[in-house]
Amino acid sequence: MSNNTTGSVLWFTGLSGSGKSTLADMTYKHFKTQGLRVEQLDGDTVRQIFPNTGFTKENRIEHIERIGYLCSVLEKHGIIVIASFISPYHSSREFVRNLCHHFIEIYMSTPLSECEKRDIKGLYKKARQNEIQNFTGISDPYEIPKGPEITLNTQNKTIAESFEELLNSIQQETLLPNMTSMTL
Amino acid sequence: MSNNTTGSVLWFTGLSGSGKSTLADMTYKHFKTQGLRVEQLDGDTVRQIFPNTGFTKENRIEHIERIGYLCSVLEKHGIIVIASFISPYHSSREFVRNLCHHFIEIYMSTPLSECEKRDIKGLYKKARQNEIQNFTGISDPYEIPKGPEITLNTQNKTIAESFEELLNSIQQETLLPNMTSMTL
Repeated sequence: MSNNTTGSVLWFTGLSGSGKSTLADMTYKHFKTQGLRVEQLDGDTVRQIFPNTGFTKENRIEHIERIGYLCSVLEKHGIIVIASFISPYHSSREFVRNLCHHFIEIYMSTPLSECEKRDIKGLYKKARQNEIQNFTGISDPYEIPKGPEITLNTQNKTIAESFEELLNSIQQETLLPNMTSMTL
Repeated sequence: MSNNTTGSVLWFTGLSGSGKSTLADMTYKHFKTQGLRVEQLDGDTVRQIFPNTGFTKENRIEHIERIGYLCSVLEKHGIIVIASFISPYHSSREFVRNLCHHFIEIYMSTPLSECEKRDIKGLYKKARQNEIQNFTGISDPYEIPKGPEITLNTQNKTIAESFEELLNSIQQETLLPNMTSMTL
């Protein structure tokens, strides 16, 4: 079954704490248990491999473009890529979109106030205290996607509810050709 | 057949004009016609996608490390990666080796004098005239691999002879598990 799938790139973008990694994890596991060929790329994980990657606009754009290229090559080989990166700049997301064939932008629109309230990693607190610079949403911009395929606000929802909404969105739009009917 | 292969990374390193791309092309086509899952990554091609990538030591190392990560993810999915990059620094080649499971370093040892005589792209001439800076072998170092799996000098050989020698080297070392017996 796995070889009949068309590669796709599900690109989660949004603020830290908006729910990207949580939902990306669940999506990855969901597809994985279906026996599909799937790869997960997460901002934190990739930065561990490249710890010198900075957070300036230039650093971020170069980082995202490189990840996007990786996504596009994996997609070409029929792999479903689940990518979760803050990816705050419109231009770099468009660069990735243009490299890929089936690019599905999933904008996590959870408001900053909610993300900051969650503050799972304690980063917002540090950013407010100027202990961290170039922090998206506080001291660095987040450019809202202009035409995302899916928009998801996780505020006032359980994780299970958000995940169900996400899967429904993917299914409704039949954005994953040759795959959705089998797997969702 | 293609799904029983183990992913591998065949990494061609050496000076400009040493024969990397030519032999990498032939190797890619050879595996491709066998129906194997194979991907080709070449320095010139990738730099076209990222035209702002510079040639300083720092630029080169970052570039190669990013490519190496891409190779390692493709390899994980059972894909044979044919990578041809000057990759002049030992540390970055070792970074890639450590990320990968089946890393086969193919050192093109064709001497500088021969590469410069060929000068297929006219780059050595420009480098000698200082029209190009940071040119490996002229104004930038090339660190010879310490323990490459395969060493190949293409001087005084036809392309077909070099390719045959390369395939024999791969076969003799049975460096591509689950694959060599079928395909070579």
